Amino acid sequence: MKEAETGFGAWMGAIQARMEAALARLLPQAQLAPARLHEAMRYAALEGGKRVRPLLAFAAGELADASAERIEIAAAAVELIHAYSLVHDDLPCMDDDVLRRGKPTLHVEYDEATALLVGDALQSLAFQLLAEHRIADEARTQLEMVKVLALAAGSRGMAGGQQIDLEATGCSLTLPELEFMHIHKTGALIRAAVLLGAACGRELQQNEKPGLDRYAKAVGLAFQVVDDVLDYDASTATLGKTAGKDSKQGKPTYVSAIGIAAARRLAEELRGQAHEALKGFDARSRRLGELADFIVLRKF
Amino acid sequence: MKEAETGFGAWMGAIQARMEAALARLLPQAQLAPARLHEAMRYAALEGGKRVRPLLAFAAGELADASAERIEIAAAAVELIHAYSLVHDDLPCMDDDVLRRGKPTLHVEYDEATALLVGDALQSLAFQLLAEHRIADEARTQLEMVKVLALAAGSRGMAGGQQIDLEATGCSLTLPELEFMHIHKTGALIRAAVLLGAACGRELQQNEKPGLDRYAKAVGLAFQVVDDVLDYDASTATLGKTAGKDSKQGKPTYVSAIGIAAARRLAEELRGQAHEALKGFDARSRRLGELADFIVLRKF
Repeated sequence: MKEAETGFGAWMGAIQARMEAALARLLPQAQLAPARLHEAMRYAALEGGKRVRPLLAFAAGELADASAERIEIAAAAVELIHAYSLVHDDLPCMDDDVLRRGKPTLHVEYDEATALLVGDALQSLAFQLLAEHRIADEARTQLEMVKVLALAAGSRGMAGGQQIDLEATGCSLTLPELEFMHIHKTGALIRAAVLLGAACGRELQQNEKPGLDRYAKAVGLAFQVVDDVLDYDASTATLGKTAGKDSKQGKPTYVSAIGIAAARRLAEELRGQAHEALKGFDARSRRLGELADFIVLRKF
Repeated sequence: MKEAETGFGAWMGAIQARMEAALARLLPQAQLAPARLHEAMRYAALEGGKRVRPLLAFAAGELADASAERIEIAAAAVELIHAYSLVHDDLPCMDDDVLRRGKPTLHVEYDEATALLVGDALQSLAFQLLAEHRIADEARTQLEMVKVLALAAGSRGMAGGQQIDLEATGCSLTLPELEFMHIHKTGALIRAAVLLGAACGRELQQNEKPGLDRYAKAVGLAFQVVDDVLDYDASTATLGKTAGKDSKQGKPTYVSAIGIAAARRLAEELRGQAHEALKGFDARSRRLGELADFIVLRKF
């Protein structure tokens, strides 16, 4: 069976398995000193979630004819940034969460100081991966990848979004304010996953770049809208994290800002925008389209 | 007056002023959204300390005929990693310190969540700087610089050293164990400062590299031994941080491991090793030699 003929579910399963193996290989081994830190880093990053960002990196890499060996390094870097953000986000001074994907959060399983250092070290490791493996034709491109990831993770990206989130707790935000927050908090890293996956391959043509960027932005926002809808809908049992916690903590969500029906409509609209953005591409954009559907239509 | 004729004190003052201006320019402006985060990042990184790591980067850069414009970017990256580590280190779950350089620590002045994000965002910014400025002749060299900094900051470097430190609290360590801890905790980043400064300039010859590395290792360790001696000696007033806190918190120090007299002798021995390591170099290594003296002979 040729790869192009593989169904989406099988493709997704294969990438998820591949990422698990890649992360297990790229993270420091648990017996290496300091062993407790390395064991905790693996606890934070392995067996984790749906791997949406790596899936996006692989789908964008396919568009650019990149090799899987390269994409998995770029995807691992993005996923390590994501994993570190979850560990820090769960800390008592932030969301104070005790459960993540059905398991005790890292500071509960280990301790707060270790959780702090795990997050710090996972971030360093992400940049190390982008620098020490050959994942683009030109070193100059790889430097650009480091910059894209650093911007996406930093104060004008994810960390900045977290800060806006902190300050917004207990406030009601307008839709544009909410959008500004999420473009930073989740959108920036999702966009980075798409751009980094593509950067592993051929140089995109001038007309391809804006389309891919529009796709990434639509999907990044859709992901958060759907998260808010699922958070509203779900029970603790099915979601594996404390459901409804965002609204309980007084955090503004798309549901609280515009209501559940309008939030569902918005997710659907963003899915349409994502597909629209892919129109200029050939069949190699198939997985990106399927992923937009998966992200919006998922039930968990 | 030619630069080579400038006294050490004037040279040091000029670099410190230059770094302050560079960091003020390279950090996001305080009015930029999210303003509280950016203001706090500036609080963490500006008006800070002796800038030992930037001084080492400039001294090593001089050895390699690097331009000051390049060195200041590399030095800023290292200093931002150092600044982030102090912010996280002061948090209640780590050393729980309220005073740093005579000012309230960041989580006291702002709050814990902001302190967490400030550290995270400073780390991202450090890698952004190494990627977005042209600071070496070859992009490949710059990628190598990203790798050196990531390794120095991560679980096999500084963050790993912090973890070993955490686990050692309340224990008595042997001298080799203590050395292992400090080679990671402070030594790795000091070594990175030297290597990154040098990487901004001409390619070092094969016989120069091991010497520079031996110098960096000796100075890195000397820095910590002297810190422990000063911590033992000083009063809160002169040091600007809670003096004697390490021994009060039950942390192993060189003084607790081998006694104050032996610790002083060790610092002197390491100073000798640093000078010894510079023997193969010409007059361009002058500042590195002076810095080794400054680091060991300083009284604050």
